[in-house]
Amino acid sequence: MLALIIDPHPRVVHDHPEPARATGEAIVQVHTAGVCDTDLQILRGYMSHRGVPGHELVGHVVEADAPGWLGRRVVTDINAGCGHCASCMTEGGHHCATRTVLGIAGRDGAFAERIVMPERCLVPVPDNVDDDRAVFAEPLAAALHVLDEVRGMTSDAVVIGDGKLGLLTAMALVGEITDVTVVGRHRDKLGLAESFGARTCLEAEAPATLRANLVVEASGSVSGLAAALRIVRPKGTIVLKTTTAEAHTIDLAPVVINEIRVVGSRCGDLRRAICVLSKLDPTALIEARYPLSRADDALRHAGRPGARKVLIDVG
Amino acid sequence: MLALIIDPHPRVVHDHPEPARATGEAIVQVHTAGVCDTDLQILRGYMSHRGVPGHELVGHVVEADAPGWLGRRVVTDINAGCGHCASCMTEGGHHCATRTVLGIAGRDGAFAERIVMPERCLVPVPDNVDDDRAVFAEPLAAALHVLDEVRGMTSDAVVIGDGKLGLLTAMALVGEITDVTVVGRHRDKLGLAESFGARTCLEAEAPATLRANLVVEASGSVSGLAAALRIVRPKGTIVLKTTTAEAHTIDLAPVVINEIRVVGSRCGDLRRAICVLSKLDPTALIEARYPLSRADDALRHAGRPGARKVLIDVG
Repeated sequence: MLALIIDPHPRVVHDHPEPARATGEAIVQVHTAGVCDTDLQILRGYMSHRGVPGHELVGHVVEADAPGWLGRRVVTDINAGCGHCASCMTEGGHHCATRTVLGIAGRDGAFAERIVMPERCLVPVPDNVDDDRAVFAEPLAAALHVLDEVRGMTSDAVVIGDGKLGLLTAMALVGEITDVTVVGRHRDKLGLAESFGARTCLEAEAPATLRANLVVEASGSVSGLAAALRIVRPKGTIVLKTTTAEAHTIDLAPVVINEIRVVGSRCGDLRRAICVLSKLDPTALIEARYPLSRADDALRHAGRPGARKVLIDVG
Repeated sequence: MLALIIDPHPRVVHDHPEPARATGEAIVQVHTAGVCDTDLQILRGYMSHRGVPGHELVGHVVEADAPGWLGRRVVTDINAGCGHCASCMTEGGHHCATRTVLGIAGRDGAFAERIVMPERCLVPVPDNVDDDRAVFAEPLAAALHVLDEVRGMTSDAVVIGDGKLGLLTAMALVGEITDVTVVGRHRDKLGLAESFGARTCLEAEAPATLRANLVVEASGSVSGLAAALRIVRPKGTIVLKTTTAEAHTIDLAPVVINEIRVVGSRCGDLRRAICVLSKLDPTALIEARYPLSRADDALRHAGRPGARKVLIDVG
């Protein structure tokens, strides 16, 4: 089948093997996939992933054990756990020690005609959420997961980063918290953040007095945590979203002195995201779309500084 | 008066100015002071502190506004806040933006005949807690503060570091949590940890499978956090105690991937510590004592690898 593979550079191939389905798994025909900054990090060596990248998708089920799935339009949780450990029983296998992760670790991803995932990872998409919205389910779930750290805070949040995840996170926080400020580098994307109710400021113009109880570090850059440490109030919380292939060099004494809570936050609940997507429309984030046969161009486009969401149409 | 000053190297002087008392403050005659690793970090440039270091002490009040304090044996919270901001009202000024900190920031410390502190920072010492126990009140309070992060955990804690703070933290955790393991570098100090009920293992012999829900990083070394990240379970908590003058270089991707909570933890509640000291005896940690006139030798001794608590007797 048609797919983009990393070997170790990205290239489109026509003869990638069809995914093989085990009991309890489903084959999903991909309609559209989204390019995430994590895909770009993978190209730089993050997770040493080889094979097909891509973990944001909407599609429909073409093979499954349970007949109810056949033909259903779906999105999917990207963590394929063992299905029977404590993590799988209580939190969908997000921390299962033997998990594979779609397009990131040990499992071919969505920049291909078809993928295979356990049926238990699939989430049906209702008719009022079209494909262009549904393809945001995975990153929006990750953004909504930040709300789990809000813990009674009602005001003052700063999101560092006006990239795709930063903007989705700001969307998730507006309405839950008053005074959400996005600090970014791109006037056009900050304009988008303003359009859904966030305050904004350019990083270069951020006042030295900017402070918040909750700071979400979604800059995609190793410098983001240091910026977050300058902004967060004593005893405040930093939610760390950025994963990079590089190590940070950072003075962590302020974490101890100011008793900061730095919380890593990764994947969220796809059902919650699909539910929110019936009311929230993130499609203004879409900047470009490419056919799967030009997925390598899609990755290059997504790598441009300031690029918004790039979609890959599979069919 | 007699004092040890940092200028920028440590030296004992006989003519250090007497501390000046403002309204609401008390002069405390120091009996005994303890050397903390933070003092050694200050010698290396941490906090750029100049003047007298030292923040662990027991003494008695020789001047105060409130007559009830005169002659009282006391220990003291080291954070001298403004006394009227929200932090001062709710948490003893530990995060007051304009605070000075005894022997650490903007206020001469306890390696001197006398100190001055706000009366509101003083905590009386009952007769059943002698000076050699009471001088542990400040570091024990910091150790007990870790319990505020235990949040319902009942088993599995690892303390990285068999230094003074590591051992006090293990003492604080034993009894609250089953299976507390101290990972250290010194057989004699690990023997001490075993004597009060902790499991122990030498860092070089720590099994690769060692895992815990709660890891306290009290190694005093920049390498401690990386070790903690290898040990902590997914969704677990790392309590960060180490402050150093150097920056860390560290790969923080595991914090995000495993959704770890890294919580800085600094000073605790001196009243709670004094209460615990009436039952708990940490004096086995004392390794050596020097008169104030040889405080520079005390600092050198405390800087030896593996040194336990060094006390400075003031009189």
